[in-house]
This record gives sequence, C-alpha cells and structure tokens, in this order.
Amino acid sequence: MTQILIIGGSDAGISAALRAREVDETCQITMVMADAYPNYSICGLPYYLSGEVKDWHALAHRTRDEITSQRITLLTDHEATRLDLTERIVDVRDRAGSIQRVAYDQLVIATGAMPRRPAIDGVDQEGVFFLHSMESSFAFQRFLTTQRPRRVAIVGGGYIGLETAEALTHRGLRVTLLQRGASVLSTVDPTLGASIRATLERHRVTVLPEMPVSAIERHGKRFQVRRGANTIADVDAVLVATGVEPNTTLGRVAGLPLGARGAIVVDERMATVNPGVYAAGDCVVTLHRLLQEPTYLPLGTTAHKQGRVAGENAVGGDLRFAGSVGTQVVRVFETVIARTGLLEREALAAGYAPLTIEITTWDHKAYYPGAQEMVIRLTADRETTRVLGAQMLGAVSGGIAKRIDVVAAGLYAGMTAGELNDLDLSYTPPLGSPWDPLQTAAQAWLHERDAGSSSSLTSPAQLPQ
Amino acid sequence: MTQILIIGGSDAGISAALRAREVDETCQITMVMADAYPNYSICGLPYYLSGEVKDWHALAHRTRDEITSQRITLLTDHEATRLDLTERIVDVRDRAGSIQRVAYDQLVIATGAMPRRPAIDGVDQEGVFFLHSMESSFAFQRFLTTQRPRRVAIVGGGYIGLETAEALTHRGLRVTLLQRGASVLSTVDPTLGASIRATLERHRVTVLPEMPVSAIERHGKRFQVRRGANTIADVDAVLVATGVEPNTTLGRVAGLPLGARGAIVVDERMATVNPGVYAAGDCVVTLHRLLQEPTYLPLGTTAHKQGRVAGENAVGGDLRFAGSVGTQVVRVFETVIARTGLLEREALAAGYAPLTIEITTWDHKAYYPGAQEMVIRLTADRETTRVLGAQMLGAVSGGIAKRIDVVAAGLYAGMTAGELNDLDLSYTPPLGSPWDPLQTAAQAWLHERDAGSSSSLTSPAQLPQ
Repeated sequence: MTQILIIGGSDAGISAALRAREVDETCQITMVMADAYPNYSICGLPYYLSGEVKDWHALAHRTRDEITSQRITLLTDHEATRLDLTERIVDVRDRAGSIQRVAYDQLVIATGAMPRRPAIDGVDQEGVFFLHSMESSFAFQRFLTTQRPRRVAIVGGGYIGLETAEALTHRGLRVTLLQRGASVLSTVDPTLGASIRATLERHRVTVLPEMPVSAIERHGKRFQVRRGANTIADVDAVLVATGVEPNTTLGRVAGLPLGARGAIVVDERMATVNPGVYAAGDCVVTLHRLLQEPTYLPLGTTAHKQGRVAGENAVGGDLRFAGSVGTQVVRVFETVIARTGLLEREALAAGYAPLTIEITTWDHKAYYPGAQEMVIRLTADRETTRVLGAQMLGAVSGGIAKRIDVVAAGLYAGMTAGELNDLDLSYTPPLGSPWDPLQTAAQAWLHERDAGSSSSLTSPAQLPQ
Repeated sequence: MTQILIIGGSDAGISAALRAREVDETCQITMVMADAYPNYSICGLPYYLSGEVKDWHALAHRTRDEITSQRITLLTDHEATRLDLTERIVDVRDRAGSIQRVAYDQLVIATGAMPRRPAIDGVDQEGVFFLHSMESSFAFQRFLTTQRPRRVAIVGGGYIGLETAEALTHRGLRVTLLQRGASVLSTVDPTLGASIRATLERHRVTVLPEMPVSAIERHGKRFQVRRGANTIADVDAVLVATGVEPNTTLGRVAGLPLGARGAIVVDERMATVNPGVYAAGDCVVTLHRLLQEPTYLPLGTTAHKQGRVAGENAVGGDLRFAGSVGTQVVRVFETVIARTGLLEREALAAGYAPLTIEITTWDHKAYYPGAQEMVIRLTADRETTRVLGAQMLGAVSGGIAKRIDVVAAGLYAGMTAGELNDLDLSYTPPLGSPWDPLQTAAQAWLHERDAGSSSSLTSPAQLPQ
C-alpha cells in the first residue's frame, strides 16, 4: 500500500491530502506538522485580532475530525527535522524531543513560508510581534489583552500591514503605519496607493511613507521606533509585517534545488527533481502564466491549487498546475483594492510593450441609489492588444473582488482588450451598467492606443454614466 | 460626405451614432426616433416607479446636449414610416403629421422591441398597463399617483414582472404575481425559481403559479383578473409583462428577411442582406456563441455592443459582433439571480451532453461576519467537460452579478470545468474563499461526472467552508 507523507498542515498540505484521498481510496496518508493547528486560515488572523472573529477555533477551514474522517493520520506538534531522499525517510521530532523515522513512498513538502525578519536592531525582543502562525497570533492577542497597549506601530505597508492596521483600529488602538517606499501597497500603482492612504487616514491611521526603520528601542513599557537618530514612532507595541520567505531548510539540506527567492524548484506537476517528491504552496516557485517563468508568489489560493495537483500526482495522477496570474485582493476599511496580471513596470521588464490607462466610473448606474466611484487601471500590450493586467479600487458594495476575477479569467485565456470589450457581462441597474466598467476601460484603452502617444482619454460623452 | 441615418434612439441607436462619430469625424449623422427620450435607460423604469429614482430625467444615460455635442442631429418625435431600400430614403413623420423624406448613404435600423400583447380579453382597456417606453411608464406613474391603487396584479413572472413586483411593493402596494408556468422566472431552473418565490413571499407578494390569464374584467374602478370562470385576482390595476417582440414593421415591409421570432436577419457585421443597411439591438437576431446560430435575445448589453459594431461598420469599419452567451441578472429585493450560457434543457436541444450539479456554499469565509449562503448550478458537457452554463442565486452583498461574469468570460473562451477550477481568482476572507465557490462547483461537477450516473456530490469534508 502506497505511503503518502505530507509535511505541513496548512493550505497546500491539506489540499494534497484531501485530493490524494479523493483519487485513491486505499493509500495511507500521514501528515506531519510543526504546530497543533491543522488547516487553519492564516489569512483570517487579522480578523481574530480585530475581535470580529470571537473564537479562534472558527478559523479552521475544517475540524480535525473532518480531516481524520478521510483516513488521514495527523501528527500535530511534530516537526520534520531531516529528509533523507535516498532512503525515503523523514525524521520527525515531537514536543518531548523524541525522534521518529517515517518512511514514505511519495512525499509532499508543504512547509510554507515564514516571516521575513528585516535588519532592524531590536526586532527580536519581547513586545515586537510577527503575524504568521496561530501561535504568533495568540502571543500578540495575549499581549493586547493583558498589556492593553494604546498605540501600535506596524512596520510594512503590504497586505498584512494594511489588514492589521484596520484590525487594530477596529479594536480601538491608534496605529502608525511605517513603510519603506513612497506609496502604500507597492503591489499596486501609486494612484491607488494614494487612495488607500486616504482611506487609512480617514480612520485615523498615521501613515509615514519613505520611513525605513533602523531600530526598535525599548524604554520601560514603551518602544521607540527609530530611523537613524530620529524617533519616528513612540508606541506600546510593534508589529513587523515585511513579507515572507519560503521555509525550505528541510528541502535545501536534503539537496533539492532552489529557485526564485530561495523557493524549491518544481515543475508543472509540482514534482521536484527527486522522483516521488512533490512540493507545493508558499515554499515553492510558482509558474506565472504571463511571465512564463517561475516566480515567488506565496498566496493561499495558489497553495490550495498546487496542493491539489501534488496530492493527485502523488497517487499516480498527471495533473498540471495551470499557473498564477498574480490575482490579489485586500479590503482596507470600506475600500477594496485588487490586482491581477502585471503592473506596467513588470510588463516592461518581461519584454512586453505595455500601455496603461486609468478610468474612474460608477460601480452601478448612477441614477440608482448607492452608486460609488471605482477606479480601473488597465494594462495591455500596444502591439498585440493582449491584456496584461488590471488594478481596481472601489467600495465593498462595488464587487471589486469579483470584477478583478473577470480580468483574471481573461488573462488565463490570453484575451485582448477588444475581447474584454466583447464579453457578455451581466447588467441590471442596481448592480451594473450596460457597458460594464471593465468594458469602458477596454474602450478607453483602445482609444488611447489608437490615439498614439497623445494622452486624450475617450471623451466624457462617449463614456456611459 | 457620408450621410448616416439611424432609426431609433435607444441603446443600439445611440451606440451606433457615438461609435460612428468616434471613428469618423466628418460623416453626417442623423438619428430619428419616435419619442422624445433619446438614450433613456428603459431598464431603469421599475426604479422610477418604485420611487427610488425621484426624477425621470436621471434615467438618461446621456443628456440631449451630450449627444448633440458629438454633432449628431436628433429628430425626436419623428416616426420612420417607410423605408425605400432602392432609393435609399426613409419617410419620417413628425407629431403634426407632416412627412419628410430623409436620404441616407448608410442606414442603421435600431427600432427595438415592443411589449408582446397576450391573447387576454380586456388587455387593451384603460387601467391595464405595459411597461416598455418612457411614455408607458409616465402613464402608469400618473395612474399610481392620481388613482392611488392599493392592489395591483402583474401578469408575467419574468425579469420585468419581478422587478416591478419589488418596485410596487417598495411603494407600498400589495402585489399579486400571476404566471403561466409552474416556476417564477422560467429562464432559470425551478430550484432557483423556488428561492425567488420565497423571497417574494417574504415581502408579501402573492405568487400564483400555473395561472394563465384569460380575461381582465372591469367593474367600476376594480379589475377582476380571470382564468376561465374563476376570478384569480381582484385588484385596482393590472400590469402586463409577458415579454417583448421585435419591432420590425419598417424593415419587414421594405423586404428585409426576418429570422428567429421575426427579428431582422443580420450577419456578424450587423449588416442586413441589403448593402449599406445595418440593424442592431432588440429588433435583430443575435448570434449565440454556444448555439452558433442566431436566436432572439433582446438585452440592453447586447444592444449596446451590436450598435457599436453597426456604427463602426456604417462608416467603413469591419468590426464583428462576438456573440452573446445569454448573460442576465436580476435583483429581487435582497436576492440576486443570474445566469449565463445554456440551461440543461437548452444544451440538450443543441446536441450537447449536459450534466448539471448544484451546490450551496458561503459567499465568503463563514468565520467572517456577514457570510450568506449562495447557490450555484453549473452545467457542462459530459464528453468534452466544456462549460455550457451557470446559474447563481445569493445575497446582494455576495457579488453574484460579477461572479456570473467570470463564467461568462469562461464561456466566451470555451473553458472546461477543469479550467474554471484552475483560474487564479481573488481571495480575502471578508470577500471570498481560497477556493472560490465557482471552483467548488467545478470540482463538484468533475467529481459527479467521474462518479458516472451516481448522484453523490463531493463529500462535505472536501468542500471548503
């Protein structure tokens, strides 16, 4: 009977286990994971800290029973310490320190990512938090509850930084957001970053751009966050959210080749170079459909898909990961920001001839109550007119997260701007427009491209309201 | 100088005029229309009746000035009475009855649709209303305001019937909805129809299915709606909403061939058989991408697209209408229902081997407040796994109108169920799930198909929450 061993109990690992079981009734599936929280929604941690999710147990995508009922053996609190690719054995250490040797026929490495620890003096002291695992969120939650800080500095203006800024504000804390670059959320263009910043400031979050942090100094119960000689924030706690890096020690030591950003190299079948060894999720390189090369793009959506592919292939399947187009969305208070595909600078670097336009329009017919403005930036290739990417910003009620998905589907299929304009999209006045905003953007793009280098957009009379 | 004549001032006509001007700065554009309301949103009429749109002027997609500023000559209140294809002349009659002969080089017929008048005794009397034009809505509004009816019967459970049922309920009237078939909104499957009915009934709309109306009898200020000898509703007014038919008298008399449901035959360039004569919108047949044949599908979205194609081609362009996939959405109180592609019975009739599954899931992660249940029905071909259609029902906050658009994009591109599952869709806990509900549906479909004729869906433990 085939022994499937999966290292890691988060999105990719669980997806692999469930898919392996779905395809193969008979294989043995064992999952080892370093903590006690299988299949928890790490993306939900900000909402646990905000108090919107009262009970952390609710963050579990599935209960332990739901997993084990699929005949998946769960070894929680077991850390994989050594991988022997020749003998096909993984050493696993429990909390007590005893080591167990687990043999496998097929292995799925799903060790995920870990927070990047920036070069900041004092980043490792008590009172400075990271947010990545259940345990790290318990520690922060405990601090918030027992120490009752009033002011918190967040280092990093990315997705986690923004979500946590909202969460802590929701909880009544005063937040200062410190970011290295000029614009909040550097994964979208600065015009959208400026809108996000305005949203944050409306909710009394202090945003300090171009503020690289050099040190965090403790003074009694207070922390001074410093940039060189200057104190830029004087707070009761610090949260560092400067991104993640792949957690690949196990694979690297065992000799698996690493690629982009030190992530494990896999092919479209999620197979490593070692026969019978698959890897998936935040610890591996991810194929980008528009770049047609591996990149590092750690996302829960991708981890689920890659895990499913690895799980099916581990039991003899031949599934392929179709690739990512980099779709991401974040809600910051009442504003939703989404992107898919490439930014103009990324498209340029990849050898495309990108042209980007920006439109502002209503998210449904302006005559029906509740219409909100939304912004679309659309990037496509001047020569082929192929769509390369889109960014959108609008209200929660504006369906931004699903509108970006329409572009994501178009990117998957390699559509041109004209084809986006041709799509048969839905319309009813309370929810849309007869020309969907995306199509208004496509028409503006075509108009701009035909106008050559001039900067005139489609004239207002041509744009539907 | 090329003389472009456009007959009709609604979606298709205006789109044609604007596009012609956009492409050709020099042509002369004249638009004749039978009423005084160019470019009004007919889809918005229910919201004018409900009182949500206070001023009917707001229903204009564009003002008259915005249109004429594009150097488009507007002849409102001018009815085209005769078309001479040989002489290239259209006779136009103004309200005073005088007739003007307008010559054209290129003609766009955009005469739209008109309400179907069902074979019901008494359907033509005062107090029985249709809702299709601005003038018909003014008449009904006047009646509502001056006569203050308390009970209204609506004949027809389609989109307009449902929207008007909501609108009149919103206004404080008691509504009885009479429909011929067993299920509300026969353009979606009965399981969804049952949900819509429940929504209507929660708002005290009386729904009477399988209730074909034979007569409307007036008794003083009251109307008895009758089915044979039985009175099925005793009301103060009746609205008939039993669909539309193409308004093609002009083209038919001139000798243009008619196709599906009596609509004018056009090709993908929106050209009729007569050189220089184009037609677009609710008066023409529409190519269906999945049926690959002309059908009759009068929708504002399609009319805009076809008008744009006709307008560009009338000034020498060579644009093609890409075809409809039948995407439609309606909001009924707090519920949104959408469809795209084919229902199972339509797919069968078209020679496909359809399999349909239905799932109920959360519209975002259940742990985050505000998650609502949504239903997806997904139809794909058993043999090719090509997606043929989807239907969705959920809450307004659930983004249903944009979720269906993702499927519409997939249908356009000819995606399979596996490809839907591979799409890189966006995720953040307050707005979605790492496997989007659409992907959960795709997986359930693949599972069901692999299970052959058994009816087991993907087991609950496999479905993400």
